[in-house]
Amino acid sequence: MDLLLDTPLDMHLHLREGEMLGLVAPFSAAQFAGGVVMPNLVQPVDSLERVRAYRAAIAATCGTTGFAPYMTLFFRDYTSQDLAEVKDEIIGVKLYPAGITTQSEAGVRDFDRIGATVALLEELDIPLLVHGETGGFVMEREQEFLKVYQWLAETFPRLRLVMEHITTAAAIEFLDRFDQVAATVTLHHLLITLDDIAGGLLRQDIFCKPIAKTPRDRDALRQAVLAGHPRLMFGSDSAPHPRHKKERLGCAAGVFSAPVALPALAELFVEAGCAEHLPAFVSANARSFYRIEPPAKTVRLEPIAWRVPDRYGEVTPFLAGKTIGWGVKAPHPSQF
Amino acid sequence: MDLLLDTPLDMHLHLREGEMLGLVAPFSAAQFAGGVVMPNLVQPVDSLERVRAYRAAIAATCGTTGFAPYMTLFFRDYTSQDLAEVKDEIIGVKLYPAGITTQSEAGVRDFDRIGATVALLEELDIPLLVHGETGGFVMEREQEFLKVYQWLAETFPRLRLVMEHITTAAAIEFLDRFDQVAATVTLHHLLITLDDIAGGLLRQDIFCKPIAKTPRDRDALRQAVLAGHPRLMFGSDSAPHPRHKKERLGCAAGVFSAPVALPALAELFVEAGCAEHLPAFVSANARSFYRIEPPAKTVRLEPIAWRVPDRYGEVTPFLAGKTIGWGVKAPHPSQF
Repeated sequence: MDLLLDTPLDMHLHLREGEMLGLVAPFSAAQFAGGVVMPNLVQPVDSLERVRAYRAAIAATCGTTGFAPYMTLFFRDYTSQDLAEVKDEIIGVKLYPAGITTQSEAGVRDFDRIGATVALLEELDIPLLVHGETGGFVMEREQEFLKVYQWLAETFPRLRLVMEHITTAAAIEFLDRFDQVAATVTLHHLLITLDDIAGGLLRQDIFCKPIAKTPRDRDALRQAVLAGHPRLMFGSDSAPHPRHKKERLGCAAGVFSAPVALPALAELFVEAGCAEHLPAFVSANARSFYRIEPPAKTVRLEPIAWRVPDRYGEVTPFLAGKTIGWGVKAPHPSQF
Repeated sequence: MDLLLDTPLDMHLHLREGEMLGLVAPFSAAQFAGGVVMPNLVQPVDSLERVRAYRAAIAATCGTTGFAPYMTLFFRDYTSQDLAEVKDEIIGVKLYPAGITTQSEAGVRDFDRIGATVALLEELDIPLLVHGETGGFVMEREQEFLKVYQWLAETFPRLRLVMEHITTAAAIEFLDRFDQVAATVTLHHLLITLDDIAGGLLRQDIFCKPIAKTPRDRDALRQAVLAGHPRLMFGSDSAPHPRHKKERLGCAAGVFSAPVALPALAELFVEAGCAEHLPAFVSANARSFYRIEPPAKTVRLEPIAWRVPDRYGEVTPFLAGKTIGWGVKAPHPSQF
């Protein structure tokens, strides 16, 4: 039996720019009603002007597909006037610790100095989206960062706070302590652990940040998502890199999952007997938390197996070469 | 002031075969008086005939360098006669769990069935060298395997047992419980953690098995080695792969450290103010545990900085491009 998804949303998405934008955005536009677009371009999207220019570039690529790009602003010190001007054009402000992931060098170096801007976000009711990792040991970075989340949640109790791409059982536990906090979960962190990356041969193609953690962590994420946790939202963190950046020594972190996200989620939820919770995870929870009304779009998933291509253009997708038991009707841009 | 090392030994070494043997063995032969040669060739070294053939191939490569190859036999079911015949030609028998690392497919699948052969090793006083990892989660494999070590140590109390290339604080603690157990420690596990491999860009060149663990684990190894633990022996686990196996998607595990091992160890011990414990770690502890008398060879280390080449032939060495503050007098085969 087909699954009909009402207005699926990808609440954490890297569309890149230039040629790569042209390659990858159509995949998201074909399968999602909208997506939260991350601002960590080579030049961070950190002004109203840049938000508008990036939105225009995305619109030019996605055309009339009915895809709503929910723009984000790169966190730095902003004035009240800055934020008031940009507020209607963004869904939130995205905070990166400096240097923690791809193109995050302009991020926060001193968390003691972010209070004034965060207070403005709370006052203006602009959500704060956070890449929550310290610079500590790679397997412990997210858990160590929970103290920053706690400080934010306690100091700014009316701030809507999003823990992005959570990967640990500890983050799930933390989420339950604060009603104003939500989190995104990727597809790949529901499927893989560090074992898949480094347990056999080293798999550059699925190397990502935050790094995939332990089986216990993955199970905690799965359990919460499949049980229909009301503040967990799907965010693919689809982050394409061209082959030469994945295959070189010193491989870039990122998994391009946009083309496979909904089919693989359908397979996961159906096999677990939890298909009734998929619509909340991929749409309703996000609409409720962010108070958004995306353009209506129904996506039909069919239980028809397909083999994920080895590459789309110069990008290896997540699950390349694997067979997925569910497919999206008319899933791909016309050139593929 | 120069450091003079009396008869340095590398107690865990992959010399490979064919062209690769010709490339890498001279590095070990130039800097070490002898080394324990691992038997996991494409065709495992699992008979007297193969031990002799492999020894001859190594001798042909190392010539008159005064390098003693201490041969090992790949663990499988052996009869008392098999082992009695080969005993004088080997230093020990090397056990691999099946499929746990490079060319280990012929290893042990069922530990309940190894008792008879292990009893023979105990009776004949042939040391058992073990790659101690389960097939569990990559960061926990060594710790999970400690129960097998415990069973071996308790069931065969006169067996000389070597925990190869240990990487965890738990292994150090275990070692102190059984006097008849020793362990090898690599250079790279004294220097790196998982952070170095996967904390920034993904570093295929230093991807190894067992995977490098946490800072706490590395610190425990360092502390025990630098304090002169009498049953810790240096074993490089130098494991060269040609570039195409390290740079491809699905990268092979192994670090080629033979050319840099003694200089980097000298630097580590001297900087920690523990130079007096280096001779035991790289020679005396192994001579005592294995009761061997290698051909005398003095190696002179000088406090002269040198830059590690990016490649030796088709192999990227450990610490490629880095500067080491100590060098071995006449360290390299003549062609480099």
